[in-house]
Amino acid sequence: MNMFHILFLFTLLSSTSYASVNDFCIADLKGPNSPSGYQCKPPNTVTVDDFVFSGFVAGNITNPFNIALTPAFVTEFPGVNGLGISAARLDMGVGGSVPMHSHPGATELLIMAKGKITAGFITPSGPYVKKLKPGDVMVFPQGLMHFQVNSGKGKASAVLAFSSENPSAQLLDLLLFGNSLPSELVAQTTLLDVAQVKKLKPLFGGRG
Amino acid sequence: MNMFHILFLFTLLSSTSYASVNDFCIADLKGPNSPSGYQCKPPNTVTVDDFVFSGFVAGNITNPFNIALTPAFVTEFPGVNGLGISAARLDMGVGGSVPMHSHPGATELLIMAKGKITAGFITPSGPYVKKLKPGDVMVFPQGLMHFQVNSGKGKASAVLAFSSENPSAQLLDLLLFGNSLPSELVAQTTLLDVAQVKKLKPLFGGRG
Amino acid sequence: MNMFHILFLFTLLSSTSYASVNDFCIADLKGPNSPSGYQCKPPNTVTVDDFVFSGFVAGNITNPFNIALTPAFVTEFPGVNGLGISAARLDMGVGGSVPMHSHPGATELLIMAKGKITAGFITPSGPYVKKLKPGDVMVFPQGLMHFQVNSGKGKASAVLAFSSENPSAQLLDLLLFGNSLPSELVAQTTLLDVAQVKKLKPLFGGRG
Amino acid sequence: MNMFHILFLFTLLSSTSYASVNDFCIADLKGPNSPSGYQCKPPNTVTVDDFVFSGFVAGNITNPFNIALTPAFVTEFPGVNGLGISAARLDMGVGGSVPMHSHPGATELLIMAKGKITAGFITPSGPYVKKLKPGDVMVFPQGLMHFQVNSGKGKASAVLAFSSENPSAQLLDLLLFGNSLPSELVAQTTLLDVAQVKKLKPLFGGRG
Amino acid sequence: MNMFHILFLFTLLSSTSYASVNDFCIADLKGPNSPSGYQCKPPNTVTVDDFVFSGFVAGNITNPFNIALTPAFVTEFPGVNGLGISAARLDMGVGGSVPMHSHPGATELLIMAKGKITAGFITPSGPYVKKLKPGDVMVFPQGLMHFQVNSGKGKASAVLAFSSENPSAQLLDLLLFGNSLPSELVAQTTLLDVAQVKKLKPLFGGRG
Amino acid sequence: MNMFHILFLFTLLSSTSYASVNDFCIADLKGPNSPSGYQCKPPNTVTVDDFVFSGFVAGNITNPFNIALTPAFVTEFPGVNGLGISAARLDMGVGGSVPMHSHPGATELLIMAKGKITAGFITPSGPYVKKLKPGDVMVFPQGLMHFQVNSGKGKASAVLAFSSENPSAQLLDLLLFGNSLPSELVAQTTLLDVAQVKKLKPLFGGRG
Repeated sequence: MNMFHILFLFTLLSSTSYASVNDFCIADLKGPNSPSGYQCKPPNTVTVDDFVFSGFVAGNITNPFNIALTPAFVTEFPGVNGLGISAARLDMGVGGSVPMHSHPGATELLIMAKGKITAGFITPSGPYVKKLKPGDVMVFPQGLMHFQVNSGKGKASAVLAFSSENPSAQLLDLLLFGNSLPSELVAQTTLLDVAQVKKLKPLFGGRG
Repeated sequence: MNMFHILFLFTLLSSTSYASVNDFCIADLKGPNSPSGYQCKPPNTVTVDDFVFSGFVAGNITNPFNIALTPAFVTEFPGVNGLGISAARLDMGVGGSVPMHSHPGATELLIMAKGKITAGFITPSGPYVKKLKPGDVMVFPQGLMHFQVNSGKGKASAVLAFSSENPSAQLLDLLLFGNSLPSELVAQTTLLDVAQVKKLKPLFGGRG
Repeated sequence: MNMFHILFLFTLLSSTSYASVNDFCIADLKGPNSPSGYQCKPPNTVTVDDFVFSGFVAGNITNPFNIALTPAFVTEFPGVNGLGISAARLDMGVGGSVPMHSHPGATELLIMAKGKITAGFITPSGPYVKKLKPGDVMVFPQGLMHFQVNSGKGKASAVLAFSSENPSAQLLDLLLFGNSLPSELVAQTTLLDVAQVKKLKPLFGGRG
Repeated sequence: MNMFHILFLFTLLSSTSYASVNDFCIADLKGPNSPSGYQCKPPNTVTVDDFVFSGFVAGNITNPFNIALTPAFVTEFPGVNGLGISAARLDMGVGGSVPMHSHPGATELLIMAKGKITAGFITPSGPYVKKLKPGDVMVFPQGLMHFQVNSGKGKASAVLAFSSENPSAQLLDLLLFGNSLPSELVAQTTLLDVAQVKKLKPLFGGRG
Repeated sequence: MNMFHILFLFTLLSSTSYASVNDFCIADLKGPNSPSGYQCKPPNTVTVDDFVFSGFVAGNITNPFNIALTPAFVTEFPGVNGLGISAARLDMGVGGSVPMHSHPGATELLIMAKGKITAGFITPSGPYVKKLKPGDVMVFPQGLMHFQVNSGKGKASAVLAFSSENPSAQLLDLLLFGNSLPSELVAQTTLLDVAQVKKLKPLFGGRG
Repeated sequence: MNMFHILFLFTLLSSTSYASVNDFCIADLKGPNSPSGYQCKPPNTVTVDDFVFSGFVAGNITNPFNIALTPAFVTEFPGVNGLGISAARLDMGVGGSVPMHSHPGATELLIMAKGKITAGFITPSGPYVKKLKPGDVMVFPQGLMHFQVNSGKGKASAVLAFSSENPSAQLLDLLLFGNSLPSELVAQTTLLDVAQVKKLKPLFGGRG
């Protein structure tokens, strides 16, 4: 067999796969976005490091919620562009909690690593809440409001996986209180007391 | 030209389109559901009435919110099964409001028909709120928390269209207060005062 | 609780959702198009007016068909880019009609507002035609040929919703007669008489 | 190395792929349909013959159009269920033509095998027509009206591929004339002369 | 405000979301499969345990490869049905390795938990290989051939996440050698020596 | 009827379909790629030749494998951009074979044109292999490893269709041996003998 011929043939056969959008499309974060994701980096500039994210470590939990979320979404990890998956690491100190939030268009898996977490999502037909321990995986279907609370006596941590490369988090308190809407409008549309709204607004940077 | 032959040929040519899942798939609501929607009714039982919904009329607004929502979703309108679209009619009395809610996985269009409605959605980067009048159409991107308030002096009404045949509504108050979660847990995960939670729970059927 | 810390935390938690392609992607109509839609406007230039279309009013029906179609598609309403939904307003004078047409890849809902409209779509297995009145909604499954005729004694109007942000209309007469194909070729491929083709060509700007 | 252990391990590792919906899903044509296609045949009854269609041969062109279309769609070839692709063989005698038609939601590739075919599709912005010979491939984007005419002096044939496993054909003449709609309604919505409609109705089995 | 009225209204508003296919669709594993996944369990039988998988623990690595894979795919974890995401746990003893394999239609994230793993995927334009440690996440784009090797001095483990609820694994050796194809055919289509094929066949249960 | 008015109306009605991304999006191969495909060429520069590929002819089979593959993928045929379909022509000399390969995310149809081809794909649950002749069509579900061998006494040829406009080919030998990975690593992750790996590496341009 002739090596030159084989190489030539294989080059021919596989020429269309070089730089193929179907194999991968590393995000060019400086370019424009589109409904399907970011434009692809030129294929000849791609290296293995585009496929590896190296900051998946415990974040600083010295804050009022005693939690840290370390995302590996497309904006930190351009290799997942267009692939419909991403991850994050959740660390919770004693008494820590991730307040109510949702991810439009993304399902979340919570994979327990350490400690005990009481987690749940709420739907019109009822809440689904469970106390989780290592060995447990819980799914939060896309777009549903959910929360996590450290219900153990020590630290807790978990790996989160999302069915989207960019699962934006809609934190309920930030939505309701971190804005400039009149407190009366917020109260009217949430049925909360105006006093409650006015009390929480300053905590989340809201005005009005 | 010979009519018999033409008919024969056309029958041949088009035989695969009879009962095609690609043309339409009327929901058999008594059968099981699947991630792509309901099973299709047998094609030979389909009539034009499967494609028409006739109850798109103003509902009764004699209730605390002074509103009525009349849905034409797949469960009322089996003809939209698998087609990724549905509609609803919104009627609002003076002072009426649709409180905060979201539709996981469905974008909503609000098409003003009568009166004045102040509508908005809230995101981590800020609220987007507008006072709408007939001639206006507003879009609420999928999964985002939004509300509508009758801000005029008379009745208001609008047509809603959704990018899903089954755009379940996640009403924030029903989620937070219409359940059996301990009030302390709700307070912890929403940062609301426990007293506020305990005050609203009975209004939405919640316990605990 | 310390406001600074909370704000800091929330900024951290939600940083990935700023400018997220998942929340919305307002079309930059001056930029290039792609199979998934237009590129997104820079997020910091987005205002509430990007989510509102204000020209959804009755068009001028002083024309041979006595109809007017007012679209709110992505080219008029950049806020629906990537969201798979759009709308249009249809106004029909006495005797008006929207001739046969189809929307490749888009399902249409017709929501009656005023008057009486006889509407239908035609498939190889038969026509589905209905006389509609206010309170009725009819669905025209994607890609099927359909029409609407004002069958009442006064004006008629309807709201149309589409399962695509850019539901291009393929008007049968414009396709068949508004082109430069030889009349003989049109006749051969439609089985219409050549004389019929030659009669209609000039009406739709066709040559040949 | 111990064969038993290896086998045991591989069975473990790959157990989830047995009968996986992700590998393939042979249509159970006797079961119900759904928006995503037919239910899957039980995996243990699948044989290689489910993946092979053996009737892709020239059909009988002794008919008024001098053509034959031999489909390998999901209803004839259950192996393509859920895979979004299918094929057909087109044979055309001298003077044969496939009249105007569209495939809702399916793009078509025409791959020339023999003879000469003039093919085209028509859009509001103009017709795209080309005389094709062996070595040519033409694409007809989804949902657009198109036609094929044998423009050579002998027989012609082509392979057609579709981006759907069930690309229903909407034959314009059958739609317009093969139904029970009043001729006047057809004329009104097509702008054809009533006499033209009445002349063609009987040829396609229509009444009225 | 009247509690009865509010409850009544909310029931009305949210009635369509009860049992909605859009919220979730727990797999009924005893029912038939379809291209979009399994049929949904009746909503009134759903409990929180349908959303939790509790066997995500280290498997037994006493086998020739010194590895264990513990899947939480739809067949073990019916709650992920239709949601496009799943997970698995990988445990590797000293010298353990997961041989070459691919997942058709699923992207994989590998999230390091312990030890050191050299992982990589191979494409026509080159291999992408990296020695990973805790804190690293690597993405293997859908359908590409990849492997993992314990390259540390102790045990290693990782969490895997997949962009599919049923990411069947195509293990190269099992594909090539665990079948009844003639060794000569395998050799011809892989360019391996016949002797090599004949040597490996018995290890993977192959005949011929 | 007034021609001017009709033209004016039709222009209005169809204005949104000019240059619509929904009708077609010819790839601008010089622009950037995105997860949904290439950017669209400006619509006013599109001609019928963008929809026709004219090099679908037998390639040169004077090479060690006695085969030629002539692709009509998006990089050669920009008209299929965003449409999810493409084609290729396969020519095989006596004894020719297409070695094991897969297409991530694309299903393949093989439509026999001439000769005899033994084709098959391999899965964990077994191989599916068939000797094909003209009149046969075989489907290779997406992402599965497959091969084709000329098993007749003369030349063979086939048309291939793919459910992707860019079905990159992952040729097993090129993946395994055409790289710079250490032979020992390749051997470890394939279970092949190191000697076998070292023998094949030079044939495919690999080093190490």
